[in-house]
Amino acid sequence: MSALSLSTTPPRSRDLSTTLSQSLPLYPSSFNPVKILPNRSFIVRNCSSGSSPITSKHENRSHSGFEHDQKLTALREIFRKPGVNIDAYIIPSQDAHQSEYIAECYMRRAYISGFTGSAGTAVVTSHKAALWTDGRYYLQAEKQLSSSWTLMRSGSSGVPSTAEWLNDVLAPGSRIGIDPFLFSSDAVNELKESVAKNNHELVYLYGVNLVDEIWKEARPLPTSKPIRVHELKYAGVDVSIKLANLRCELINHGSSAIVISMLDEVAWLLNLRGNDVPHSPVMYAYLIVELDSTKLFVDSSKVTPEVMDHLKKAGVELRAYDSILSEIERLAARGGHLWLDTSSINAAISSTYATACDKYTETNGSKRKGKNSSVAPTALCKSSPVSLAKAVKNHAELKGMRNSHLRDAAALTEFWSWLEEEMNKNVVLTEVEVADKLLEFRASQAGFVDTSFDTISGSGANGAIIHYRAEPDSCSIVDTQKLFLLDSGAQYLDGTTDITRTVHFGQPSERQKECFTRVLQGHITLDQAVFPENTPGFVLDAFARSSLWKVGLDYRHGTGHGVGAALNVHEGPQSISFRFGNMTPLLKGMIVSNEPGYYEDHAFGIRIENLLYVKEIDTPNRFGGIAYIGFEKLTFVPIQTKLIDLTLLSASEVEWLNDYHSQVWEKVSSLVDGSAREWLWKNTRAVAKP
Amino acid sequence: MSALSLSTTPPRSRDLSTTLSQSLPLYPSSFNPVKILPNRSFIVRNCSSGSSPITSKHENRSHSGFEHDQKLTALREIFRKPGVNIDAYIIPSQDAHQSEYIAECYMRRAYISGFTGSAGTAVVTSHKAALWTDGRYYLQAEKQLSSSWTLMRSGSSGVPSTAEWLNDVLAPGSRIGIDPFLFSSDAVNELKESVAKNNHELVYLYGVNLVDEIWKEARPLPTSKPIRVHELKYAGVDVSIKLANLRCELINHGSSAIVISMLDEVAWLLNLRGNDVPHSPVMYAYLIVELDSTKLFVDSSKVTPEVMDHLKKAGVELRAYDSILSEIERLAARGGHLWLDTSSINAAISSTYATACDKYTETNGSKRKGKNSSVAPTALCKSSPVSLAKAVKNHAELKGMRNSHLRDAAALTEFWSWLEEEMNKNVVLTEVEVADKLLEFRASQAGFVDTSFDTISGSGANGAIIHYRAEPDSCSIVDTQKLFLLDSGAQYLDGTTDITRTVHFGQPSERQKECFTRVLQGHITLDQAVFPENTPGFVLDAFARSSLWKVGLDYRHGTGHGVGAALNVHEGPQSISFRFGNMTPLLKGMIVSNEPGYYEDHAFGIRIENLLYVKEIDTPNRFGGIAYIGFEKLTFVPIQTKLIDLTLLSASEVEWLNDYHSQVWEKVSSLVDGSAREWLWKNTRAVAKP
Repeated sequence: MSALSLSTTPPRSRDLSTTLSQSLPLYPSSFNPVKILPNRSFIVRNCSSGSSPITSKHENRSHSGFEHDQKLTALREIFRKPGVNIDAYIIPSQDAHQSEYIAECYMRRAYISGFTGSAGTAVVTSHKAALWTDGRYYLQAEKQLSSSWTLMRSGSSGVPSTAEWLNDVLAPGSRIGIDPFLFSSDAVNELKESVAKNNHELVYLYGVNLVDEIWKEARPLPTSKPIRVHELKYAGVDVSIKLANLRCELINHGSSAIVISMLDEVAWLLNLRGNDVPHSPVMYAYLIVELDSTKLFVDSSKVTPEVMDHLKKAGVELRAYDSILSEIERLAARGGHLWLDTSSINAAISSTYATACDKYTETNGSKRKGKNSSVAPTALCKSSPVSLAKAVKNHAELKGMRNSHLRDAAALTEFWSWLEEEMNKNVVLTEVEVADKLLEFRASQAGFVDTSFDTISGSGANGAIIHYRAEPDSCSIVDTQKLFLLDSGAQYLDGTTDITRTVHFGQPSERQKECFTRVLQGHITLDQAVFPENTPGFVLDAFARSSLWKVGLDYRHGTGHGVGAALNVHEGPQSISFRFGNMTPLLKGMIVSNEPGYYEDHAFGIRIENLLYVKEIDTPNRFGGIAYIGFEKLTFVPIQTKLIDLTLLSASEVEWLNDYHSQVWEKVSSLVDGSAREWLWKNTRAVAKP
Repeated sequence: MSALSLSTTPPRSRDLSTTLSQSLPLYPSSFNPVKILPNRSFIVRNCSSGSSPITSKHENRSHSGFEHDQKLTALREIFRKPGVNIDAYIIPSQDAHQSEYIAECYMRRAYISGFTGSAGTAVVTSHKAALWTDGRYYLQAEKQLSSSWTLMRSGSSGVPSTAEWLNDVLAPGSRIGIDPFLFSSDAVNELKESVAKNNHELVYLYGVNLVDEIWKEARPLPTSKPIRVHELKYAGVDVSIKLANLRCELINHGSSAIVISMLDEVAWLLNLRGNDVPHSPVMYAYLIVELDSTKLFVDSSKVTPEVMDHLKKAGVELRAYDSILSEIERLAARGGHLWLDTSSINAAISSTYATACDKYTETNGSKRKGKNSSVAPTALCKSSPVSLAKAVKNHAELKGMRNSHLRDAAALTEFWSWLEEEMNKNVVLTEVEVADKLLEFRASQAGFVDTSFDTISGSGANGAIIHYRAEPDSCSIVDTQKLFLLDSGAQYLDGTTDITRTVHFGQPSERQKECFTRVLQGHITLDQAVFPENTPGFVLDAFARSSLWKVGLDYRHGTGHGVGAALNVHEGPQSISFRFGNMTPLLKGMIVSNEPGYYEDHAFGIRIENLLYVKEIDTPNRFGGIAYIGFEKLTFVPIQTKLIDLTLLSASEVEWLNDYHSQVWEKVSSLVDGSAREWLWKNTRAVAKP
């Protein structure tokens, strides 16, 4: 899935400030676009090409939705309440954990604005209401926003950022309210600086989210689905060992405690899995690890006796999810050194800690004079060490990933075999129906839990929309005369998958074949790459583009993202991208996607994606006395040879393809039977250069 | 020549601070090594492997050189003189212009220490004398330093930097003297900060270089060789146009004047060439360009009537070389905004300007109050715009480069033909004799001026020493049983060349053939690369290493450096390197070297180097509406096919080779005759995969 690969920065580094200051989302809401090369415009195209944006004012007023007006009125009434007293309120898409996928009860921006796209920021002042979203969602936002709202087309020239707009429409010295749980610490600092230019004050409203106040009973309840233990045979390392390793990190950095707020980090560290958000098997929770204690902040109704037992064994105490801030204050009062990853930790936590530290110093400053000054509480602002630990998979995790990929390959074999047959029978199927059928095949595999992201099922021109999401009422049929791009993945108990294949059920054009072949060459070159240890991922990105570049083609997303083991389908800190800021090396044990593509606007899209395991290669030499690193494939599903122009492939590329298909047959054939097995046989036969 | 390519930063970004703070020279003295990737140790190997470094104290005392003691005594006597009064004096290798090659009269570090290697820093205190140099020179320094000197082996573990050492050996609050002309502004700031840790003061001794004081009559006179006009047919653009363009840059940046101190920038801007240093056709000079005047600071004895006329036409006034500082003071007094490239401008100039600005503000501060504050003098610290302008060649420069490369190819054809014949006749020739003969062949070509760097002529194990310099009394013979690496270049009136070929006159081993072939594959891959405009050079570096990486091999230098047109063989700002700090894109018109290599310690060295011209490629597509960029070869000399393992080459690589050789024959055969032409014929025949 190419979503994450649009960003160099790992999920944890994303910060909302981008959302706010760049009036965001050229990129998936949860990932922070970093430095973009000059003159390589990576702007995601405007998918709503049918619409005619009112460019003169970069805004659009639609003409429906009295209900929304009522919401705004209700919201504005709260503005004047004592203890609130604000002139504007910012409602971002985020939850308190900077999650890529969030629970419905946290979809406040969608509730207040009526716009349900994944990326967007709403801002309401006493007289105005504006919503920022990117080109993917212009059309949808135009339809969904009432006339009370102004649509701000992020990425269109001249459109101000949220902060710029606030500086423009508010009288100097206004008070801008936010829910500090919904902004990362870094994002808030950037926002604060921006609005300070017009002397505005950023007001943290701790006790209450104003949207929740008007949402009231209609607001979905937070999920209370039970947490489950992620079995040791899948996790590979016991919780107590993970915690001991983390404490070593704390000690090495002179830190006495750390707050973990990324949901996948909490899940990984405690060998737990949850059901609170779609696609990611995580639960809403914070974790505080001190040198002598571990506290999990979670809704106790989700904690089964088995989980309770599991946590007790690891010395983990339970605390109420909502008591996180009082615990943060207690930490400061203890005078410790708290490790905070300010790129992911929310501003409520960081600000509470800072305030508590100040209070501590005021109270104890004079008393403690002369004593060891290290007792004063301080913060260590640094990337969470759990991110890297989690990214480097152990043997059990790798085994689970390998096994789940084989079952996933079996499901995909059944699916493609079925789809080809339906196409041959001229059955009319929509993109959504096809995606639903794929889900059926996957769901019948052992250990299936969920999809790992919304399936991208795009026929023809839809395939060129990198983040296309087919909707039942508007999607296309899978046209046998067009290319069909299918990017999908699943969560299994033992692993997470993510695969893209592009196929044609009729006769592809020469143009399509050339583009497909060049994408394949990029895929092969990256797959075969060997490189010295400690090489950052971006060094390899050009390998995947080289063949396209030779004829003046390219693609506007990264080439690879990290993937969790039975966890988030997008994880950091590594990536393979043309953005050169991420110096994280590809380390043995990491998993990355290999997904070059090519997208021809209004015509077709091509992407070929496998997941790869990063491993040491047994090279005949070890120049410099270091290890040389390469990849091992996890994904074993045929690549459609009909789409390959074999005259373009080198002998070694043909060899790679034949070798891959022979492995696919060897590994997957025993898992399928009947027509699926026949399909697999046919689609794994060796090809030869003409 | 691989020297520059060891560094990402262009020559202009080098700063002495590196020399001082990192106790330098893992790299050529004039280039500043930047960020080195962790775990990819790029330490240039210790060439003096025969020596046994005294690692316990990281120092070495040799037992000769009473004369040197006298020099130190004389130097220390000056320490106590009124107006000097220092406790230590630092003597770097540099001249006042941060030149790669310097005139003999500026080789003060060599004079005072007796150590003549190209890289090193001498520091003398009242009681101690220490010299820092890198692994290339340990052995030579051991031999050349008297017992009064301590050798500091830079790059050996535990060896302090110059500043660390000074902080260690001097009493707190000492005065450390420097000649501010010999340190870049950036370097001095870093040094100042480092020694301030021990409360030392950095004392700028403007009027006098203390080494010159004791060198006296023995000091070589500064050269006074005449400057010549670089004809418009070679330069392509008239001086007045270059100056007008530069003034546009000044205006665009709100600057009123710029000081140019890099010698190649002065030469390029004024279409002049000089004879003051070896290998680079430049003259010692500063240039100050104001919006309404241009002043060249140069020894007027070098200015011929023709040059005088040329300068007058361009409105360039002459000033004495030594009057630069008084002009700097005048600029401040005029209240302008001076553009200073602090990475190259010496501390004498930057500091003089800063002082003059302060003085101006003190004097005029009250008087001018209320008036336009922009009249107060300020500095704009920014890379010199001349660097980029010079790097992008115009048509005449390109033509000169193409033509000179063909004549150079003719000379090399004659040379290789001659050498092969001598080898076949079993004539014993040393590395130096062979290099001398090459010079003869080149010197007979039209427009020959000089070598463009010291020829690297390395047989067998010497080829593995990346910066090997054969010396008549110690060099090896060119052994027919060993690989022979020859890296050389020339300055012609119309262009600058730099080429490396590696050959074997007998039967190469399979190991040598495999390594050579993989280096060649890297060379071919880079040569054929096509990439989107604005791609920084480092993106391409991995292309040149990929084939070596596959078997666990690599090389410890960059892959490409910029080359001047009838100017410095190493120039910035672009480079192709594994150091990722240099974001300068490869722009149409730039020239870069393509020189991957492989070096097996104590055995052999391989490097294949051509120069390439960066040009737009007429790709069938232009995705993103941008240009796609690639290379055109400038160098046309056969690559020894005997060294190629053809089974490793792909069909397209074989095609590249045959195509290249057919071009070599086509372009060079008419320029040679007799046995040389025969040799060329034989060495440009097509090969085929077995």
